Amino acid sequence: MGQAEALTALAAIGDSEFDRDTAVTPRPGEPGVYDAELSAGWTIITAVNGGYLLALIGRALSQALPHPDPVTVSAHYLTPSTAGPALVRTELIKSGRTLSTGQASLYQYDDSGAEVERIRVIARYGDLDSLPADVRTTATAPSLPPYDHCLGREDGPAPIPGSSEITERLDLRLDPATAGWAIGAPSGKGEMRAWFGLADGRDADPISLLLAVDALPPTAFEMGLLGWAPTVELTTHIRCRPAPGPLRISITTRNLAGGFLEEDAEVWDSADRLVAQSRQLAAAPRT
Amino acid sequence: MGQAEALTALAAIGDSEFDRDTAVTPRPGEPGVYDAELSAGWTIITAVNGGYLLALIGRALSQALPHPDPVTVSAHYLTPSTAGPALVRTELIKSGRTLSTGQASLYQYDDSGAEVERIRVIARYGDLDSLPADVRTTATAPSLPPYDHCLGREDGPAPIPGSSEITERLDLRLDPATAGWAIGAPSGKGEMRAWFGLADGRDADPISLLLAVDALPPTAFEMGLLGWAPTVELTTHIRCRPAPGPLRISITTRNLAGGFLEEDAEVWDSADRLVAQSRQLAAAPRT
Repeated sequence: MGQAEALTALAAIGDSEFDRDTAVTPRPGEPGVYDAELSAGWTIITAVNGGYLLALIGRALSQALPHPDPVTVSAHYLTPSTAGPALVRTELIKSGRTLSTGQASLYQYDDSGAEVERIRVIARYGDLDSLPADVRTTATAPSLPPYDHCLGREDGPAPIPGSSEITERLDLRLDPATAGWAIGAPSGKGEMRAWFGLADGRDADPISLLLAVDALPPTAFEMGLLGWAPTVELTTHIRCRPAPGPLRISITTRNLAGGFLEEDAEVWDSADRLVAQSRQLAAAPRT
Repeated sequence: MGQAEALTALAAIGDSEFDRDTAVTPRPGEPGVYDAELSAGWTIITAVNGGYLLALIGRALSQALPHPDPVTVSAHYLTPSTAGPALVRTELIKSGRTLSTGQASLYQYDDSGAEVERIRVIARYGDLDSLPADVRTTATAPSLPPYDHCLGREDGPAPIPGSSEITERLDLRLDPATAGWAIGAPSGKGEMRAWFGLADGRDADPISLLLAVDALPPTAFEMGLLGWAPTVELTTHIRCRPAPGPLRISITTRNLAGGFLEEDAEVWDSADRLVAQSRQLAAAPRT
Protein backbone atom coordinates (compact mmCIF):
# COMPACT_ATOMS: atom_id res chain seq x y z
CA MET A 1 0.00 0.00 0.00
CA GLY A 2 0.94 3.65 -0.23
CA GLN A 3 2.72 3.95 3.09
CA ALA A 4 4.90 0.88 2.52
CA GLU A 5 5.85 2.03 -0.97
CA ALA A 6 6.71 5.45 0.35
CA LEU A 7 9.07 3.93 2.89
CA THR A 8 11.10 2.31 0.15
CA ALA A 9 11.65 5.54 -1.83
CA LEU A 10 11.58 8.55 0.44
CA ALA A 11 12.70 11.85 -0.99
CA ALA A 12 14.52 14.06 1.50
CA ILE A 13 13.71 17.60 2.56
CA GLY A 14 15.88 19.76 0.31
CA ASP A 15 16.15 17.11 -2.42
CA SER A 16 12.65 16.45 -3.70
CA GLU A 17 10.24 17.41 -6.44
CA PHE A 18 8.63 19.98 -4.13
CA ASP A 19 11.98 21.56 -3.28
CA ARG A 20 13.05 21.76 -6.93
CA ASP A 21 9.69 23.17 -8.04
CA THR A 22 9.67 25.86 -5.35
CA ALA A 23 13.32 26.84 -5.83
CA VAL A 24 14.09 30.53 -6.30
CA THR A 25 17.31 31.99 -7.71
CA PRO A 26 18.71 35.31 -6.45
CA ARG A 27 18.93 37.74 -9.36
CA PRO A 28 22.52 39.03 -9.62
CA GLY A 29 22.85 42.68 -8.72
CA GLU A 30 19.29 43.03 -7.42
CA PRO A 31 19.21 42.19 -3.72
CA GLY A 32 15.90 40.70 -2.58
CA VAL A 33 14.79 39.76 -6.10
CA TYR A 34 14.43 36.10 -7.01
CA ASP A 35 13.69 34.43 -10.33
CA ALA A 36 11.57 31.31 -10.41
CA GLU A 37 9.82 28.96 -12.78
CA LEU A 38 6.25 28.05 -11.85
CA SER A 39 6.00 24.33 -12.52
CA ALA A 40 3.13 22.87 -14.51
CA GLY A 41 3.22 20.01 -12.02
CA TRP A 42 1.11 21.79 -9.40
CA THR A 43 -1.86 22.84 -11.49
CA ILE A 44 -5.58 22.23 -11.21
CA ILE A 45 -6.76 22.29 -14.82
CA THR A 46 -4.59 25.28 -15.87
CA ALA A 47 -4.54 27.21 -12.59
CA VAL A 48 -1.43 26.93 -10.47
CA ASN A 49 -2.31 25.86 -6.92
CA GLY A 50 -2.35 28.73 -4.44
CA GLY A 51 -0.59 26.75 -1.72
CA TYR A 52 2.27 25.83 -4.06
CA LEU A 53 2.64 29.51 -4.99
CA LEU A 54 2.63 30.50 -1.33
CA ALA A 55 5.35 27.94 -0.59
CA LEU A 56 7.51 29.37 -3.38
CA ILE A 57 7.05 32.92 -2.07
CA GLY A 58 7.73 31.59 1.42
CA ARG A 59 11.02 30.13 0.24
CA ALA A 60 12.08 33.48 -1.21
CA LEU A 61 11.28 35.18 2.11
CA SER A 62 13.15 32.48 3.97
CA GLN A 63 16.25 33.48 1.98
CA ALA A 64 15.63 37.23 2.19
CA LEU A 65 14.85 37.57 5.91
CA PRO A 66 17.19 37.07 8.87
CA HIS A 67 14.95 34.32 10.32
CA PRO A 68 14.38 31.01 8.50
CA ASP A 69 10.83 29.87 9.28
CA PRO A 70 7.42 31.33 8.44
CA VAL A 71 5.41 32.04 11.60
CA THR A 72 2.51 34.03 10.16
CA VAL A 73 1.95 34.72 6.47
CA SER A 74 -0.88 36.86 5.06
CA ALA A 75 -1.38 36.55 1.32
CA HIS A 76 -3.70 38.41 -1.03
CA TYR A 77 -4.28 36.73 -4.38
CA LEU A 78 -4.62 39.32 -7.14
CA THR A 79 -4.50 37.53 -10.50
CA PRO A 80 -4.33 33.84 -11.51
CA SER A 81 -0.86 32.42 -12.07
CA THR A 82 0.12 30.16 -14.95
CA ALA A 83 3.04 27.77 -15.37
CA GLY A 84 6.17 29.54 -16.58
CA PRO A 85 8.64 32.26 -15.62
CA ALA A 86 8.02 34.34 -12.51
CA LEU A 87 9.87 36.53 -10.07
CA VAL A 88 9.55 37.38 -6.40
CA ARG A 89 10.43 40.83 -5.08
CA THR A 90 11.02 40.88 -1.34
CA GLU A 91 11.41 43.69 1.18
CA LEU A 92 12.74 43.48 4.72
CA ILE A 93 10.32 45.63 6.73
CA LYS A 94 11.73 45.15 10.20
CA SER A 95 14.29 42.94 11.82
CA GLY A 96 13.68 41.92 15.43
CA ARG A 97 15.23 39.52 17.87
CA THR A 98 12.48 36.89 17.82
CA LEU A 99 10.71 37.77 14.60
CA SER A 100 11.51 39.61 11.42
CA THR A 101 8.88 41.04 9.11
CA GLY A 102 8.96 41.06 5.36
CA GLN A 103 6.84 41.70 2.33
CA ALA A 104 6.95 39.85 -0.96
CA SER A 105 5.16 39.95 -4.28
CA LEU A 106 5.03 37.27 -6.93
CA TYR A 107 5.00 38.59 -10.50
CA GLN A 108 4.72 37.07 -13.93
CA TYR A 109 5.15 38.72 -17.33
CA ASP A 110 2.50 39.83 -19.78
CA ASP A 111 2.89 39.59 -23.57
CA SER A 112 4.89 42.81 -23.65
CA GLY A 113 7.23 41.58 -20.91
CA ALA A 114 5.75 43.88 -18.26
CA GLU A 115 5.48 42.54 -14.74
CA VAL A 116 1.98 41.60 -13.57
CA GLU A 117 1.51 41.12 -9.83
CA ARG A 118 -0.04 37.77 -8.86
CA ILE A 119 0.13 37.64 -5.07
CA ARG A 120 1.19 40.08 -2.35
CA VAL A 121 2.30 38.85 1.05
CA ILE A 122 3.25 40.27 4.44
CA ALA A 123 4.92 37.75 6.72
CA ARG A 124 6.61 37.28 10.07
CA TYR A 125 9.50 34.86 10.18
CA GLY A 126 11.15 33.34 13.20
CA ASP A 127 13.17 30.31 14.25
CA LEU A 128 10.69 27.61 15.22
CA ASP A 129 13.38 25.61 17.00
CA SER A 130 14.17 28.46 19.38
CA LEU A 131 10.63 29.06 20.64
CA PRO A 132 9.56 28.11 24.17
CA ALA A 133 8.32 24.54 24.50
CA ASP A 134 5.18 25.26 26.51
CA VAL A 135 1.87 24.10 25.04
CA ARG A 136 -1.62 24.68 26.40
CA THR A 137 -4.22 23.44 24.01
CA THR A 138 -7.85 22.44 23.88
CA ALA A 139 -7.62 21.72 20.15
CA THR A 140 -8.05 18.10 19.12
CA ALA A 141 -6.85 16.39 15.96
CA PRO A 142 -9.45 15.72 13.26
CA SER A 143 -11.28 12.44 13.59
CA LEU A 144 -10.23 10.51 10.52
CA PRO A 145 -10.33 6.81 9.58
CA PRO A 146 -6.96 5.04 9.31
CA TYR A 147 -4.85 5.94 6.27
CA ASP A 148 -5.64 2.66 4.51
CA HIS A 149 -9.38 3.24 4.87
CA CYS A 150 -9.25 6.65 3.18
CA LEU A 151 -9.56 7.22 -0.54
CA GLY A 152 -6.56 7.88 -2.74
CA ARG A 153 -6.09 8.26 -6.48
CA GLU A 154 -6.20 4.53 -7.13
CA ASP A 155 -9.55 4.00 -5.40
CA GLY A 156 -11.95 3.76 -8.32
CA PRO A 157 -13.65 6.93 -9.51
CA ALA A 158 -11.01 9.57 -8.91
CA PRO A 159 -12.07 11.65 -5.90
CA ILE A 160 -9.93 14.42 -7.39
CA PRO A 161 -10.43 15.47 -11.02
CA GLY A 162 -7.98 13.41 -13.09
CA SER A 163 -6.88 16.31 -15.27
CA SER A 164 -5.09 17.96 -12.38
CA GLU A 165 -1.34 17.57 -12.38
CA ILE A 166 -1.13 18.32 -8.68
CA THR A 167 -2.89 15.08 -7.77
CA GLU A 168 0.15 13.17 -9.07
CA ARG A 169 2.41 15.00 -6.66
CA LEU A 170 0.35 14.59 -3.52
CA ASP A 171 -0.39 11.53 -1.46
CA LEU A 172 -3.85 12.69 -0.48
CA ARG A 173 -6.26 10.24 1.18
CA LEU A 174 -9.73 11.63 1.70
CA ASP A 175 -12.00 10.60 4.53
CA PRO A 176 -14.81 8.71 2.72
CA ALA A 177 -17.31 10.66 4.85
CA THR A 178 -16.21 13.87 3.13
CA ALA A 179 -15.68 12.50 -0.39
CA GLY A 180 -19.32 12.11 -1.41
CA TRP A 181 -19.01 14.91 -3.95
CA ALA A 182 -16.72 12.70 -6.05
CA ILE A 183 -19.62 10.31 -6.74
CA GLY A 184 -22.24 13.03 -7.04
CA ALA A 185 -23.46 12.71 -3.46
CA PRO A 186 -22.01 15.64 -1.49
CA SER A 187 -22.76 15.62 2.23
CA GLY A 188 -23.97 19.20 2.15
CA LYS A 189 -21.58 19.99 5.02
CA GLY A 190 -18.66 22.33 4.49
CA GLU A 191 -16.09 19.82 5.69
CA MET A 192 -13.21 17.95 4.15
CA ARG A 193 -10.67 15.77 5.94
CA ALA A 194 -7.65 13.95 4.63
CA TRP A 195 -4.30 12.35 5.23
CA PHE A 196 -1.70 14.41 3.43
CA GLY A 197 1.80 13.72 2.20
CA LEU A 198 3.95 14.41 -0.81
CA ALA A 199 3.88 11.59 -3.37
CA ASP A 200 7.66 11.12 -3.26
CA GLY A 201 7.57 10.66 0.51
CA ARG A 202 9.29 13.95 1.38
CA ASP A 203 8.41 14.86 4.93
CA ALA A 204 6.72 18.13 5.82
CA ASP A 205 8.63 21.23 6.85
CA PRO A 206 7.39 24.76 7.57
CA ILE A 207 7.60 25.72 3.88
CA SER A 208 5.60 22.70 2.69
CA LEU A 209 2.93 23.47 5.31
CA LEU A 210 2.19 26.57 3.21
CA LEU A 211 1.25 24.15 0.43
CA ALA A 212 -0.65 21.82 2.75
CA VAL A 213 -3.13 24.43 3.96
CA ASP A 214 -4.46 24.93 0.42
CA ALA A 215 -4.04 21.49 -1.10
CA LEU A 216 -7.35 19.72 -0.39
CA PRO A 217 -10.32 19.90 -2.73
CA PRO A 218 -12.42 22.93 -1.74
CA THR A 219 -15.03 22.49 0.98
CA ALA A 220 -17.49 23.97 -1.52
CA PHE A 221 -17.46 20.60 -3.34
CA GLU A 222 -19.03 18.93 -0.31
CA MET A 223 -21.55 21.78 -0.18
CA GLY A 224 -22.62 20.75 -3.67
CA LEU A 225 -20.92 23.70 -5.39
CA LEU A 226 -18.60 22.20 -7.96
CA GLY A 227 -17.15 25.37 -9.53
CA TRP A 228 -13.87 27.12 -8.89
CA ALA A 229 -13.56 28.97 -5.57
CA PRO A 230 -10.63 31.34 -6.13
CA THR A 231 -8.75 32.43 -3.02
CA VAL A 232 -9.02 36.12 -2.18
CA GLU A 233 -7.00 36.13 1.04
CA LEU A 234 -5.15 33.37 2.89
CA THR A 235 -3.46 33.77 6.26
CA THR A 236 -1.43 30.90 7.69
CA HIS A 237 0.07 30.56 11.14
CA ILE A 238 2.83 27.95 11.49
CA ARG A 239 2.63 26.88 15.11
CA CYS A 240 5.29 24.19 15.32
CA ARG A 241 7.88 22.41 13.18
CA PRO A 242 6.14 19.25 11.92
CA ALA A 243 7.37 15.81 12.94
CA PRO A 244 8.16 13.29 10.15
CA GLY A 245 5.27 11.24 8.81
CA PRO A 246 1.90 11.90 7.25
CA LEU A 247 -0.15 14.94 8.20
CA ARG A 248 -3.86 15.09 8.95
CA ILE A 249 -5.72 18.08 7.59
CA SER A 250 -9.25 19.27 8.16
CA ILE A 251 -10.85 22.15 6.33
CA THR A 252 -14.15 23.66 7.37
CA THR A 253 -16.55 26.24 5.96
CA ARG A 254 -19.25 27.52 8.28
CA ASN A 255 -20.50 30.60 6.51
CA LEU A 256 -21.15 31.29 2.83
CA ALA A 257 -22.60 34.76 2.42
CA GLY A 258 -22.48 37.62 -0.03
CA GLY A 259 -20.68 35.47 -2.57
CA PHE A 260 -17.77 34.65 -0.29
CA LEU A 261 -16.94 31.77 2.03
CA GLU A 262 -14.24 31.22 4.60
CA GLU A 263 -12.24 28.02 4.67
CA ASP A 264 -10.45 27.18 7.92
CA ALA A 265 -7.66 24.62 7.75
CA GLU A 266 -5.94 22.79 10.58
CA VAL A 267 -2.87 20.69 10.00
CA TRP A 268 -1.78 18.08 12.54
CA ASP A 269 1.44 16.08 12.52
CA SER A 270 2.22 12.49 13.48
CA ALA A 271 3.17 13.62 17.00
CA ASP A 272 -0.39 14.94 17.47
CA ARG A 273 0.69 18.57 17.40
CA LEU A 274 -1.33 21.32 15.74
CA VAL A 275 1.38 22.49 13.33
CA ALA A 276 -0.54 24.98 11.18
CA GLN A 277 -3.79 26.92 11.20
CA SER A 278 -5.06 28.90 8.27
CA ARG A 279 -8.13 30.73 7.15
CA GLN A 280 -8.88 31.83 3.63
CA LEU A 281 -11.63 33.98 2.21
CA ALA A 282 -12.62 32.62 -1.19
CA ALA A 283 -15.14 33.65 -3.79
CA ALA A 284 -18.02 31.17 -3.71
CA PRO A 285 -18.51 29.17 -6.91
CA ARG A 286 -21.21 30.68 -9.10
CA THR A 287 -24.31 28.51 -9.08
CA MET B 1 -30.39 50.51 32.40
CA GLY B 2 -27.77 50.92 29.73
CA GLN B 3 -29.95 50.11 26.75
CA ALA B 4 -32.69 52.53 27.74
CA GLU B 5 -30.18 55.30 28.40
CA ALA B 6 -28.56 54.66 25.06
CA LEU B 7 -31.90 55.04 23.31
CA THR B 8 -32.25 58.57 24.70
CA ALA B 9 -28.87 59.80 23.45
CA LEU B 10 -27.78 57.92 20.36
CA ALA B 11 -24.83 59.25 18.43
CA ALA B 12 -25.12 58.75 14.68
CA ILE B 13 -22.76 56.98 12.32
CA GLY B 14 -20.57 59.76 10.93
CA ASP B 15 -21.15 62.05 13.92
CA SER B 16 -19.78 60.31 16.97
CA GLU B 17 -16.72 60.07 19.17
CA PHE B 18 -15.53 57.03 17.22
CA ASP B 19 -15.91 58.82 13.89
CA ARG B 20 -14.07 61.91 15.11
CA ASP B 21 -11.26 59.89 16.70
CA THR B 22 -10.72 57.78 13.57
CA ALA B 23 -10.90 60.72 11.17
CA VAL B 24 -8.10 61.11 8.64
CA THR B 25 -7.24 64.24 6.68
CA PRO B 26 -5.90 64.04 3.12
CA ARG B 27 -2.50 65.73 3.00
CA PRO B 28 -2.54 68.42 0.29
CA GLY B 29 -0.37 67.63 -2.70
CA GLU B 30 0.33 64.05 -1.59
CA PRO B 31 -2.36 61.75 -2.99
CA GLY B 32 -3.05 58.72 -0.80
CA VAL B 33 -1.41 60.24 2.30
CA TYR B 34 -3.58 61.04 5.31
CA ASP B 35 -2.74 62.82 8.54
CA ALA B 36 -4.38 61.68 11.75
CA GLU B 37 -4.26 62.17 15.49
CA LEU B 38 -4.29 59.01 17.57
CA SER B 39 -6.66 59.73 20.42
CA ALA B 40 -5.72 59.05 24.03
CA GLY B 41 -9.32 57.92 24.43
CA TRP B 42 -8.76 54.41 23.11
CA THR B 43 -5.81 53.32 25.21
CA ILE B 44 -5.21 50.39 27.54
CA ILE B 45 -2.74 51.78 30.09
CA THR B 46 -0.61 53.69 27.53
CA ALA B 47 -0.98 51.37 24.55
CA VAL B 48 -3.39 52.44 21.85
CA ASN B 49 -5.91 49.67 21.13
CA GLY B 50 -5.10 47.67 18.01
CA GLY B 51 -8.71 47.57 16.82
CA TYR B 52 -9.04 51.35 17.04
CA LEU B 53 -5.85 51.71 15.00
CA LEU B 54 -7.13 49.24 12.43
CA ALA B 55 -10.38 51.19 12.12
CA LEU B 56 -8.44 54.40 11.51
CA ILE B 57 -6.33 52.74 8.82
CA GLY B 58 -9.51 51.22 7.42
CA ARG B 59 -11.04 54.66 7.14
CA ALA B 60 -8.04 55.95 5.19
CA LEU B 61 -8.32 52.98 2.79
CA SER B 62 -12.04 53.61 2.46
CA GLN B 63 -11.20 57.09 1.15
CA ALA B 64 -8.26 55.98 -0.98
CA LEU B 65 -9.82 52.99 -2.75
CA PRO B 66 -12.63 52.94 -5.32
CA HIS B 67 -14.79 50.71 -3.10
CA PRO B 68 -16.10 51.88 0.29
CA ASP B 69 -16.24 48.84 2.58
CA PRO B 70 -13.54 46.58 4.02
CA VAL B 71 -14.10 42.94 3.01
CA THR B 72 -10.84 41.38 4.14
CA VAL B 73 -8.07 43.20 5.98
CA SER B 74 -4.72 41.65 6.96
CA ALA B 75 -2.69 43.67 9.43
CA HIS B 76 0.80 43.14 10.80
CA TYR B 77 1.60 45.05 13.99
CA LEU B 78 5.21 46.18 14.00
CA THR B 79 5.70 48.66 16.86
CA PRO B 80 3.38 49.93 19.64
CA SER B 81 1.48 53.12 18.89
CA THR B 82 1.06 56.01 21.31
CA ALA B 83 -1.48 58.81 21.42
CA GLY B 84 -0.49 61.72 19.19
CA PRO B 85 0.23 62.62 15.56
CA ALA B 86 0.28 59.90 12.95
CA LEU B 87 -0.03 59.46 9.22
CA VAL B 88 -1.32 56.77 6.91
CA ARG B 89 0.26 56.14 3.52
CA THR B 90 -1.98 54.20 1.16
CA GLU B 91 -1.39 52.52 -2.20
CA LEU B 92 -3.97 51.30 -4.69
CA ILE B 93 -2.66 47.89 -5.76
CA LYS B 94 -5.43 46.82 -8.10
CA SER B 95 -8.87 48.06 -8.98
CA GLY B 96 -11.46 45.45 -9.94
CA ARG B 97 -15.16 45.39 -10.58
CA THR B 98 -16.24 43.71 -7.34
CA LEU B 99 -13.17 44.28 -5.18
CA SER B 100 -10.27 46.66 -5.11
CA THR B 101 -7.00 45.93 -3.33
CA GLY B 102 -4.92 48.36 -1.37
CA GLN B 103 -2.04 48.59 1.02
CA ALA B 104 -1.64 51.01 3.90
CA SER B 105 0.89 51.75 6.59
CA LEU B 106 0.37 53.69 9.78
CA TYR B 107 3.38 55.74 10.87
CA GLN B 108 4.23 57.92 13.81
CA TYR B 109 7.25 60.16 14.35
CA ASP B 110 10.34 59.54 16.43
CA ASP B 111 12.15 62.27 18.38
CA SER B 112 13.98 63.40 15.28
CA GLY B 113 10.74 63.62 13.29
CA ALA B 114 11.50 60.50 11.23
CA GLU B 115 8.59 58.24 10.35
CA VAL B 116 8.37 54.98 12.28
CA GLU B 117 6.09 52.32 10.86
CA ARG B 118 3.50 50.99 13.31
CA ILE B 119 1.23 48.73 11.30
CA ARG B 120 1.21 47.47 7.71
CA VAL B 121 -2.00 46.32 6.06
CA ILE B 122 -3.13 44.71 2.82
CA ALA B 123 -6.88 44.89 2.27
CA ARG B 124 -9.67 44.10 -0.16
CA TYR B 125 -12.51 46.57 -0.31
CA GLY B 126 -15.92 46.13 -1.89
CA ASP B 127 -19.47 47.41 -1.66
CA LEU B 128 -21.25 45.28 0.94
CA ASP B 129 -24.66 46.47 -0.26
CA SER B 130 -24.06 45.17 -3.78
CA LEU B 131 -23.16 41.61 -2.84
CA PRO B 132 -25.51 38.69 -3.53
CA ALA B 133 -27.99 38.02 -0.73
CA ASP B 134 -27.52 34.26 -0.51
CA VAL B 135 -26.51 32.85 2.87
CA ARG B 136 -25.70 29.25 3.72
CA THR B 137 -24.43 28.96 7.22
CA THR B 138 -23.92 26.42 9.96
CA ALA B 139 -22.47 29.06 12.29
CA THR B 140 -24.51 29.89 15.38
CA ALA B 141 -24.44 33.02 17.46
CA PRO B 142 -22.58 32.86 20.78
CA SER B 143 -24.66 31.70 23.71
CA LEU B 144 -24.77 34.73 25.98
CA PRO B 145 -27.03 35.76 28.88
CA PRO B 146 -29.32 38.73 28.24
CA TYR B 147 -27.63 42.13 28.12
CA ASP B 148 -28.87 43.11 31.58
CA HIS B 149 -27.41 39.96 33.11
CA CYS B 150 -23.92 40.65 31.79
CA LEU B 151 -21.28 42.68 33.57
CA GLY B 152 -20.55 46.31 32.66
CA ARG B 153 -18.31 48.97 34.15
CA GLU B 154 -20.77 49.80 36.94
CA ASP B 155 -21.05 46.24 38.20
CA GLY B 156 -18.81 46.30 41.25
CA PRO B 157 -15.17 45.28 40.85
CA ALA B 158 -14.37 46.57 37.38
CA PRO B 159 -14.12 43.58 35.05
CA ILE B 160 -11.87 45.77 32.91
CA PRO B 161 -8.86 47.55 34.43
CA GLY B 162 -10.04 51.01 35.46
CA SER B 163 -6.99 52.83 34.16
CA SER B 164 -7.95 52.11 30.59
CA GLU B 165 -9.48 55.02 28.74
CA ILE B 166 -11.05 52.72 26.17
CA THR B 167 -13.44 51.26 28.74
CA GLU B 168 -15.16 54.67 28.93
CA ARG B 169 -15.87 54.61 25.21
CA LEU B 170 -17.27 51.10 24.97
CA ASP B 171 -20.51 49.64 26.20
CA LEU B 172 -19.03 46.24 26.88
CA ARG B 173 -21.03 43.70 28.91
CA LEU B 174 -19.12 40.54 29.70
CA ASP B 175 -20.75 37.16 30.12
CA PRO B 176 -20.25 36.42 33.84
CA ALA B 177 -19.16 32.90 32.86
CA THR B 178 -16.09 34.38 31.15
CA ALA B 179 -15.35 37.20 33.60
CA GLY B 180 -13.88 35.13 36.42
CA TRP B 181 -10.42 36.59 35.82
CA ALA B 182 -11.69 39.98 37.07
CA ILE B 183 -12.16 38.53 40.57
CA GLY B 184 -9.06 36.35 40.46
CA ALA B 185 -10.92 33.20 39.43
CA PRO B 186 -10.26 32.65 35.73
CA SER B 187 -12.12 29.72 34.18
CA GLY B 188 -8.94 28.35 32.62
CA LYS B 189 -10.74 28.24 29.27
CA GLY B 190 -9.62 30.48 26.43
CA GLU B 191 -13.05 32.01 25.94
CA MET B 192 -14.55 35.48 26.32
CA ARG B 193 -18.05 36.55 25.33
CA ALA B 194 -19.70 39.95 25.51
CA TRP B 195 -22.34 42.33 24.31
CA PHE B 196 -20.61 45.16 22.51
CA GLY B 197 -21.60 48.70 21.63
CA LEU B 198 -20.10 52.14 21.60
CA ALA B 199 -20.78 54.13 24.79
CA ASP B 200 -22.45 56.98 22.92
CA GLY B 201 -24.87 54.58 21.25
CA ARG B 202 -23.43 54.88 17.74
CA ASP B 203 -24.43 51.82 15.76
CA ALA B 204 -21.89 49.54 14.17
CA ASP B 205 -20.74 49.89 10.57
CA PRO B 206 -18.05 48.00 8.65
CA ILE B 207 -15.32 50.38 9.89
CA SER B 208 -16.29 50.03 13.56
CA LEU B 209 -16.29 46.24 13.18
CA LEU B 210 -12.52 46.58 12.75
CA LEU B 211 -12.49 47.95 16.29
CA ALA B 212 -14.93 45.36 17.59
CA VAL B 213 -12.80 42.34 16.67
CA ASP B 214 -10.02 43.50 18.99
CA ALA B 215 -11.94 45.26 21.77
CA LEU B 216 -12.59 42.55 24.34
CA PRO B 217 -10.14 41.75 27.15
CA PRO B 218 -7.72 39.09 25.90
CA THR B 219 -8.72 35.44 26.17
CA ALA B 220 -5.39 34.95 27.93
CA PHE B 221 -6.95 36.60 31.03
CA GLU B 222 -9.41 33.71 31.35
CA MET B 223 -6.48 31.32 30.87
CA GLY B 224 -4.94 32.86 33.99
CA LEU B 225 -2.30 34.85 32.09
CA LEU B 226 -2.76 38.46 33.11
CA GLY B 227 0.05 40.12 31.13
CA TRP B 228 -0.07 41.97 27.85
CA ALA B 229 -0.61 39.83 24.73
CA PRO B 230 0.55 42.08 21.88
CA THR B 231 -0.97 41.38 18.49
CA VAL B 232 1.45 40.14 15.85
CA GLU B 233 -1.00 39.64 12.98
CA LEU B 234 -4.75 40.25 12.72
CA THR B 235 -6.90 39.35 9.72
CA THR B 236 -10.54 40.38 9.65
CA HIS B 237 -13.22 39.39 7.19
CA ILE B 238 -16.30 41.61 7.11
CA ARG B 239 -19.08 39.32 5.97
CA CYS B 240 -22.14 41.58 6.06
CA ARG B 241 -23.14 45.17 6.88
CA PRO B 242 -24.25 45.07 10.54
CA ALA B 243 -27.85 45.83 11.49
CA PRO B 244 -28.46 48.55 14.11
CA GLY B 245 -28.33 47.49 17.75
CA PRO B 246 -25.84 45.82 20.04
CA LEU B 247 -23.39 43.24 18.77
CA ARG B 248 -22.49 39.93 20.34
CA ILE B 249 -18.84 38.95 20.23
CA SER B 250 -17.09 35.74 21.15
CA ILE B 251 -13.35 35.27 21.20
CA THR B 252 -11.69 31.89 21.53
CA THR B 253 -8.16 30.62 21.99
CA ARG B 254 -7.59 26.92 21.45
CA ASN B 255 -3.85 26.67 21.15
CA LEU B 256 -1.07 28.41 23.03
CA ALA B 257 2.30 27.08 21.86
CA GLY B 258 5.81 28.33 21.28
CA GLY B 259 5.01 31.61 23.00
CA PHE B 260 2.14 32.49 20.68
CA LEU B 261 -1.61 32.04 20.79
CA GLU B 262 -4.36 32.54 18.25
CA GLU B 263 -7.50 34.47 19.14
CA ASP B 264 -10.53 33.89 16.93
CA ALA B 265 -13.31 36.47 17.08
CA GLU B 266 -16.85 36.23 15.77
CA VAL B 267 -19.13 39.23 15.69
CA TRP B 268 -22.91 38.81 15.39
CA ASP B 269 -25.46 41.54 14.84
CA SER B 270 -28.99 42.03 16.17
CA ALA B 271 -30.40 40.37 13.05
CA ASP B 272 -28.50 37.18 13.95
CA ARG B 273 -26.04 37.54 11.10
CA LEU B 274 -22.36 36.68 11.37
CA VAL B 275 -21.01 40.10 10.39
CA ALA B 276 -17.30 39.66 11.04
CA GLN B 277 -14.76 36.92 11.61
CA SER B 278 -11.20 37.52 12.64
CA ARG B 279 -8.16 35.66 13.81
CA GLN B 280 -5.11 37.15 15.38
CA LEU B 281 -1.78 35.68 16.33
CA ALA B 282 -0.59 37.27 19.56
CA ALA B 283 2.47 36.86 21.71
CA ALA B 284 1.49 34.95 24.85
CA PRO B 285 1.92 36.87 28.10
CA ARG B 286 5.19 36.02 29.80
CA THR B 287 4.56 33.93 32.89
